[in-house]
Amino acid sequence: MAVDAPYSLYYWPSLPGRGEFVRLVLEQAGAPYDDVARRPKEDGGGSGAVMAQLSAPGGLRPLAPPVLVHGTVRLAQMPNICAWLAARHGLVPDQEDARAEAMQLQLTLADLVAEAHDTHHPVVKGDYYEVQKSEARRYAKQFVEQRLPKFLRYFEAVLQANAEGQGRHLLGSSLTYVDLSMNQVLHGLEYAFPRAFARVVGELPGLVALREHVDGLPRISAYRASPRYLPFNESGIFRRYPELDAVDDDGPAA
Amino acid sequence: MAVDAPYSLYYWPSLPGRGEFVRLVLEQAGAPYDDVARRPKEDGGGSGAVMAQLSAPGGLRPLAPPVLVHGTVRLAQMPNICAWLAARHGLVPDQEDARAEAMQLQLTLADLVAEAHDTHHPVVKGDYYEVQKSEARRYAKQFVEQRLPKFLRYFEAVLQANAEGQGRHLLGSSLTYVDLSMNQVLHGLEYAFPRAFARVVGELPGLVALREHVDGLPRISAYRASPRYLPFNESGIFRRYPELDAVDDDGPAA
Repeated sequence: MAVDAPYSLYYWPSLPGRGEFVRLVLEQAGAPYDDVARRPKEDGGGSGAVMAQLSAPGGLRPLAPPVLVHGTVRLAQMPNICAWLAARHGLVPDQEDARAEAMQLQLTLADLVAEAHDTHHPVVKGDYYEVQKSEARRYAKQFVEQRLPKFLRYFEAVLQANAEGQGRHLLGSSLTYVDLSMNQVLHGLEYAFPRAFARVVGELPGLVALREHVDGLPRISAYRASPRYLPFNESGIFRRYPELDAVDDDGPAA
Repeated sequence: MAVDAPYSLYYWPSLPGRGEFVRLVLEQAGAPYDDVARRPKEDGGGSGAVMAQLSAPGGLRPLAPPVLVHGTVRLAQMPNICAWLAARHGLVPDQEDARAEAMQLQLTLADLVAEAHDTHHPVVKGDYYEVQKSEARRYAKQFVEQRLPKFLRYFEAVLQANAEGQGRHLLGSSLTYVDLSMNQVLHGLEYAFPRAFARVVGELPGLVALREHVDGLPRISAYRASPRYLPFNESGIFRRYPELDAVDDDGPAA
């Protein structure tokens, strides 16, 4: 029971998905929150709580979860919720230009997350992976061979160019919500595409240091050891389907 | 020649694409800008100017255009650039919560733009439409039957729920960058998917009023009559491929 919490999060209860990026900010902020759909059904939880939130009156209507409610504020879109929370809890610098830089990186991470999702849903978003497996193989081939390495090399270059970052922060000299999200993306990509990830990880010493640093934050490690944490699974964005992780060990496949 | 302009925009010179959303904010703001890649090649223009900007040192490196440069500020990601410019030029309210609401809508518009793009590039982003036409037909079928109406009905509902909006603004009582972007998306969808758009437009009186209002803004109409304006074409995001606009006149196709 956390009904007195200042924040209510609405997200599908059976997968980490885009909700997990919001949870990591809330957990690192030490902000109590009510993860509404994770409550027992008899206590208002379940997917129905998410559906009801999408059509509820009051405030700006969201099109899709995650949705964060705080008093009269009702926000959607993962990067937007993360940025808004981070500004309230010291997880992004105060300066407007620095915040725009953080948002630039967060939106680029969101693009990578969307592409990782589309590997298993390339052509029909509202239907199962099983009805689009051949298209998924074609999408995933360019994802693991070209897009995944391109994005990760980009973030590594950003981290290496950040002279203040102690080799472990993407922006500035201290932890931001972008680091928390990067950590989750790195875990998700390694879970879903272990072979493709292994092929590029040697080029990413900065991102590996970032991931280890975030993993070791006391609040994050306590959260991930708690029953609040939802592990990756094959209903989420990052799914381990070996047929979509088919990289050629000698280089790009023909 | 606009080399003394305070803003430099870098975007592919032959298509409106995501750069156009930035241009509309700059034009409505009356802010002089140097559309660098649109200069003659002998004066530093062309796609090479965009490529050079992506790998240039200084500031936060962008992964993809559009890129906006203003002094030491160098920003990427279309919604982020639009929001940053709008805050400087009175095209979004000052309050932090209102700005987050604007960003929520802009990111939802960006999702719609990405899906419109993916109708012709569903499985191989780095290759031509012609090599993925069968997948494109399948993607486009769910887009025109389900996703396009879902997004547009959502934005119509947001506009209708905005009691201050005089029936023509998505947020608050005056023009924001989100209205400018919505105008462009409506034109783009009608250009690319005239049959699918015609089937739903009767349900969208508020969005039609928004579009007419923005079309009639003196700076926007002057811009679109100027040589600075790039019309839609089949190199951009919104492409008129009739085979991707195949709606059944009697309702959703089987």
